[in-house]
Order: sequence, then structure tokens, then C-alpha cells
Amino acid sequence: MTTGVRRRMGVEERRQQLIGVALELFSRRSPDEVSIDEIASRAGISRPLVYHYFPGKLSLYEAALRRASEDLTSRFMEPHEGPLGSRLRRVMARFFDFVESHGPGFAALMRGGPAVSAGGACSVSTVSATHALVDSVRQAAYEQILSHMGVEGPAPARLELVVRSWVSLVESTALIWLDGRRVPREELEAQLVQDFAALAAVAAARDEELAALLRGLVRNEPGDGPFTDLAVRLIALADA
Amino acid sequence: MTTGVRRRMGVEERRQQLIGVALELFSRRSPDEVSIDEIASRAGISRPLVYHYFPGKLSLYEAALRRASEDLTSRFMEPHEGPLGSRLRRVMARFFDFVESHGPGFAALMRGGPAVSAGGACSVSTVSATHALVDSVRQAAYEQILSHMGVEGPAPARLELVVRSWVSLVESTALIWLDGRRVPREELEAQLVQDFAALAAVAAARDEELAALLRGLVRNEPGDGPFTDLAVRLIALADA
Repeated sequence: MTTGVRRRMGVEERRQQLIGVALELFSRRSPDEVSIDEIASRAGISRPLVYHYFPGKLSLYEAALRRASEDLTSRFMEPHEGPLGSRLRRVMARFFDFVESHGPGFAALMRGGPAVSAGGACSVSTVSATHALVDSVRQAAYEQILSHMGVEGPAPARLELVVRSWVSLVESTALIWLDGRRVPREELEAQLVQDFAALAAVAAARDEELAALLRGLVRNEPGDGPFTDLAVRLIALADA
Repeated sequence: MTTGVRRRMGVEERRQQLIGVALELFSRRSPDEVSIDEIASRAGISRPLVYHYFPGKLSLYEAALRRASEDLTSRFMEPHEGPLGSRLRRVMARFFDFVESHGPGFAALMRGGPAVSAGGACSVSTVSATHALVDSVRQAAYEQILSHMGVEGPAPARLELVVRSWVSLVESTALIWLDGRRVPREELEAQLVQDFAALAAVAAARDEELAALLRGLVRNEPGDGPFTDLAVRLIALADA
């Protein structure tokens, strides 16, 4: 029995190692450009042994996508301490760490997965599975932000729109940034936090409930936080 | 020769009719739920005759996607007359007309196309083709907005980010709205125009070139335009 338990642990460890190797390779190149031979060689095992753990490149790719989504989801987790602006700023820093280290893989993930056709197998199911994974990351990010705003239970429609559309803005900004990286990422991290305040303010300008929520949040912001910084900058912009 | 020309016209007309019928059906239901029989019946022709014009559902679906993208692109075209805020407002009204009349089809298009597997054919090429079409719509929208801002030639990096990320915000807001339609669309149309101003202002707050461009645009805005409305509302919000 002890041996049985040990052997199962070994299998799971080997699977995790292979997923890690695959994720590393898929983060840099399209799945079509990564071979099972290369994965085997990097993992220091034989090609047939890879197939012992994963029936094919497609299943390994899907496992790598799952790990990447879990990793990405965890970037949005943040202790409920300190002002909202600083929390969002730390979330953005971790998010861009992920984007930077998984560049092409992140882009492929967000675009519904690349057109992988491993071994002639049709990847339609991969596309659906990828959509479901990406949606689960978006949903987790959405729920995290709401909880940091102190909102419990289903959000009012306008607040839901603000938070979900900001999550989407974060995604698309990262994708646009990846294409050339022409702006320092720290600047975008700070800007996205301020974009959150800006989008929320535009919505709050026509929704009293949202306005009251924002006023409560702004009251806890320090004078040197990103929201105050935005207000100061906008006033300077308007006065110029 | 005259007959030949006439016959070719007939073929093209018939193709356009079939594309129209297909687009109508694909706008309401997933391609997997739409049969060639139904398309034939709606078009008033036989099933074999449909195959005479299109080798299969997949090619008809792709043609419908192409027409939808052309239609969507045309919604962003707007005469270069009047203040920017009013132009964007009209673009948003036409865009939401499209979203409203093509609901599920729009959602499928923006999500990289549905998992259509017509006749056992793998739709990986459809997924890629759909990505390319969606990208062409985004690019056209991006170029239109720049031209309305009076920017010619390649845009500076920060301006490019603002405009592209706003186009993406418009898309995602429409997708979120479609899921329940819990906010009046006219409100979202107005809000998205103001979101444009808000995102541009946040970026301009740290970019003098962009700030100068925005000041020039704001100078042409009327007192009852969406940008002035936003400023008034935000001041009221801050004072409350």
C-alpha cells in the first residue's frame, strides 16, 4: 500500500513537471512549433514516457492552459488591507509580471487559444475549453475586485458593467502593450488603476448608488495614492 | 456574351441572397443549430442548389461573417463634421444597432467564432479567419477614430493605446450588455463616449503631446455636448 501511494505521487509529480516544461515552451512559441520530442528532452525523459503521462500534445497543452489560468487567477488575489488604489496597483504589477513572462502564450490564451491541430486532431474542443478557462479567470478577477470594493452578493447592473469592462480593458491593454512594448509597463500599471477610477466616475456620474459607493472608497484613499494623483493631474490638465 | 454576363449577375445575386439569409439565421442561433435545409427553405430554393453556390455550411458561414464584418466596419464611418463628441455618439448608436440586431452572432464573432464543425470539417481555419476579420474591424475603427481626432500618419504610442483600448472597451461593454441587457443601451452609448474622454484624459495627464491634442479637441466641443456634460457631472460628483 505504501508503495502504491508513493507511485501515485511520482506520477503526479512527473505530470506537474511536464506541464511546467510545456507551459515554459508554449509561453514562447505557438504549440505547432513545439514538439513532444522537445518537451521530452527538456524534461529529461523519453518521448514514449511523455505519452505515458499525456495521450498527446493537445492534452499537455490543455493542462498547461489550465495551470496558466490558475496562475493568472491567483494574481488577482490580494489581502483586504490598505486603500483600494494600492491594492489594485499591486494586482496590476503581478498581472503584468505574468503577461511579461508568458507573452505569446498569454496572447494566444486571450485570443481563444491558438489554432493548434496536434496530430491531426481538431482543436474545436480546445477552443471551447480555452474560452471556458479565460471566462473563469475573468469571473474570478471580477469577484475579487467587487470584494475589494466591499460589495457582497450580486452587484447592481451598472457596477457590474464598470468592473467587468475594466477587467476587459486590463486584458486588451496588456495585449496591445505586448505588440511592441512601446510604453513602460509601470506606467500602464499606474494608468490602469486610474482608468478604473475614471470609468467608475463616469458611471457614478449618472448613478447615485454607485456614486455613494465611490465616495466611501475615496474617503479611505491617502493623499499620495493613485486616485488622488489622478485628481491632481486632471485639475492641472484642465487648468493648463 | 450578354447571356453570359446576365448569368454571372444572377449567380452573384443568388449568392448575396443566400448570405443574407444565412446571416439572419446565424445572428440568432449557433451555426450548429442552423441547417442547410433551413437556409434553402428560407431562400426558396432546393438544398442541392444551395450547394451549387456554396460547397458547404462552413463556406456560407464564412461569407456571412465577412458581410457582418464589412457592415460593422461601416458603422464606424462618419462624416468629418461637427464636434468629436457628437460624431462618436452617432457611431455608438449605429454600433449598438448592429449589436442589437445581430446579438448572438455578434457575440460569436467577437469570441473568435463559435465552435462550428460543419460536416465534420475542422473549423480551425474558420477560427483563424474570424480572428483576422475581427482584427480588420478593430483596425478600421482605430483608424477612423484617429482620423476624427485629426491625427495623420502613425499615432504616438500612448495615443494608440488609448484609442485601441477604447475600441476594445466598446466591444466588451456591448458583450457584457448583451448578457441580460440590464442597462438601457442609450445610456451605454453616451457613457462610452464619455469613457473615451475619461481614458484619454487619464493618459493625457502624463503625456504633454496628448494633452495638447485633447485641449484642441475640447475647444471645439459645444456646451451641451457629451464631454461638457461629463465635466459638469464629475464636478457635481466631487462636490457632493
